[in-house]
Amino acid sequence: MTVSTGESTFDWIDVRADARAKAGLARRLRPRQADSTDLDLASNDYLGLARDKRVCGAAAAATLRWGAGSTGSRLVTGSTELHAELEYELANFCGSQSALVFSSGYAANLGALTALSGPGTAIVADQHIHASLIDGTRLSKADVVVAGHCDVAQVTHALQTRGKRRALVVTDSVFSVDGDLAPLKELADACREHDAALIVDDAHGLGVVGPGGRGAVADAGLARSADVVTTLTLSKSLGAQGGAVLGPSRVIRHLVDTARTFIFDTGLAPSSAAAALAAIKILREEPDRPAQALNVAHELSNRLAEAGFHTSTPTAAVVSVRAPSPEQAFAWAEACRTNGVVVGCFRPPSVPDQISRLRLTARADLSEADIERAVRVITECAATAGVETRR
Amino acid sequence: MTVSTGESTFDWIDVRADARAKAGLARRLRPRQADSTDLDLASNDYLGLARDKRVCGAAAAATLRWGAGSTGSRLVTGSTELHAELEYELANFCGSQSALVFSSGYAANLGALTALSGPGTAIVADQHIHASLIDGTRLSKADVVVAGHCDVAQVTHALQTRGKRRALVVTDSVFSVDGDLAPLKELADACREHDAALIVDDAHGLGVVGPGGRGAVADAGLARSADVVTTLTLSKSLGAQGGAVLGPSRVIRHLVDTARTFIFDTGLAPSSAAAALAAIKILREEPDRPAQALNVAHELSNRLAEAGFHTSTPTAAVVSVRAPSPEQAFAWAEACRTNGVVVGCFRPPSVPDQISRLRLTARADLSEADIERAVRVITECAATAGVETRR
Ligand SMILES: Cc1ncc(COP(=O)(O)O)c(C=O)c1O
Ligand SMILES: Cc1ncc(COP(=O)(O)O)c(C=O)c1O
Repeated sequence: MTVSTGESTFDWIDVRADARAKAGLARRLRPRQADSTDLDLASNDYLGLARDKRVCGAAAAATLRWGAGSTGSRLVTGSTELHAELEYELANFCGSQSALVFSSGYAANLGALTALSGPGTAIVADQHIHASLIDGTRLSKADVVVAGHCDVAQVTHALQTRGKRRALVVTDSVFSVDGDLAPLKELADACREHDAALIVDDAHGLGVVGPGGRGAVADAGLARSADVVTTLTLSKSLGAQGGAVLGPSRVIRHLVDTARTFIFDTGLAPSSAAAALAAIKILREEPDRPAQALNVAHELSNRLAEAGFHTSTPTAAVVSVRAPSPEQAFAWAEACRTNGVVVGCFRPPSVPDQISRLRLTARADLSEADIERAVRVITECAATAGVETRR
Repeated sequence: MTVSTGESTFDWIDVRADARAKAGLARRLRPRQADSTDLDLASNDYLGLARDKRVCGAAAAATLRWGAGSTGSRLVTGSTELHAELEYELANFCGSQSALVFSSGYAANLGALTALSGPGTAIVADQHIHASLIDGTRLSKADVVVAGHCDVAQVTHALQTRGKRRALVVTDSVFSVDGDLAPLKELADACREHDAALIVDDAHGLGVVGPGGRGAVADAGLARSADVVTTLTLSKSLGAQGGAVLGPSRVIRHLVDTARTFIFDTGLAPSSAAAALAAIKILREEPDRPAQALNVAHELSNRLAEAGFHTSTPTAAVVSVRAPSPEQAFAWAEACRTNGVVVGCFRPPSVPDQISRLRLTARADLSEADIERAVRVITECAATAGVETRR
């Protein structure tokens, strides 16, 4: 009898890897350097706060004062006064009754969806919701109906014909791939009419959309609705790490008692809580920053459209530029990077509609020269990658 | 027709809250202060590194150098050289081939379980695995069999009778509630014999168990096995935040390509990566720290047993002390806290076996006086809470 060495146990992985390599879909990590001079059009640091001195100073000071980690679950030793202050400020800034901070936006979405649903619930989800929301629906044990993208009629129909008493409608506010906006008011009306709750992931809305960057939910006048729950991430406009759920106080208390990704997860690091707090303070002091980010997005989109590309019309800081194929999207993005402009490249399976594109993110602190450089490099590299323009 | 205000949508939450309040199971957040003089026997900061000056200094410096957030997914802009260095050091320290850093231990477990399983897989899981692993099995679409706690015969039987070709056996190394150790070698043998992979969550082993704190997987001689995958958290012994998966390089590459909680999540904050790196460095320089934590755990357990309590025999830094009922466990823990000693209190539904207990965690930096104070307060408060001892 031969004794196995376990070498073949994961052989199936090589088969998958080969298939991905052939399809040009293998991914590679490329660690960046601290002093890179590349132009960043790929991060979600929409307001340029991740490296803001005030934000970083507050984060560093918090580490020295509170320690590097929160040391335990939020319910044991992982809640500091910083966490409580951040929760107060987040709710206050966005106009919600209460807030609860999670270790990531991903965890916030999983926690909200699972704690607010269950076998007696129907979930109606937009077709293009973020992966973390999808995983939340998968964990929910609810009946899940997927509605067409931003299709309020389909949502309404699903609510009307549901087989469960309780219902949740789930959507992103600003969709992460194309940067388009969900019809929040219409969805809220449909929910109200059919006694459903609305859960909105405002990850890409916070800091960019709404009055002073208070997000798309606040912009739609829904922040204080008794039947609306907002999820946020601290890792995009606020330049930090972490996530939050905002909503009626009873919902927040319910999450403290029942959300598994809250109860069984270590609290957010004090440094990240302090960074997010400092970022909110800056947003209050500089209420024009969100508009700057939007302006840059429009500039990028307009100039690239003039150059003949198929661009999205930005409603937030995300601009997408279509590519004819996954291979060309990849070659295009690679060429841009080689020429010092870092852009996102979204290809299947990371795009809900199978259309590959470059994903550019605007930042409030991009200069006119940065924008010119970006448009020039993207245009030149399109040629290299064989991407045709409409002219 | 009356127009609804949505006020009643979440009424079901109040019903649940009332039921929990009646059962004495409502939870409450109690933010701690930076300068608290309470004795902490509840955190997972086993080596006392969360507030170590070298760890905090490195974290603060990294924030100033790299920014407060990583600004994007690890595959876009969220990988810095710090992340790469941390992955190299983690793999190196624990003796694995490769490592991948996630934003939390929770995310690492979800990512590993979902990416390494699927509909063609059988998962055999210990009855007491951590919530994040349970959620991973729920997301996995695999056939899931729950085996008795540390019951190798049941695991073997489940592997033999599985209806799927591929199989994963999933366990904690040190179980978080009682601090007992899984029979890793026996499980690995069973896996090897039945062509299954073994996934071990070494969250509570790293930094305490094994040579120089290299973890329970290293201690069992399994760190370099071709069919073993280890998941870790950076938030316990390493005093930071974040998680990691360690294993054969092809497994790690596969996670980069397919793990949803890796691809669709913002990278770990530079501060936390730097803190974990500094903690590993300290572990290398002070290889006796893990033994100190273990010694403290034994001291606590022995002295409380002498005082007549039913304590667990520690195999890592966790000591559990049984309480007769959830109410008494709660009253006991509250009394300890009032008297300046913070202990964990685990009650249903957070305990897999429905037995309530105090959960004490040892720290390498607890002094003889701290231990004496702890034992005195816990003993005195047992009387207050009506907990009888065996004497
Ligand atoms: C729409 C959306 N929701 C949630 C998340 C997850 O947030 P985080 O990265 O903070 O975990 C992201 C991106 O990462 C996102 O784009
Ligand atoms: C066994 C175990 N695995 C995983 C986790 C999750 O790790 P993290 O808190 O870093 O998300 C925990 C605790 O939080 C744990 O106890």
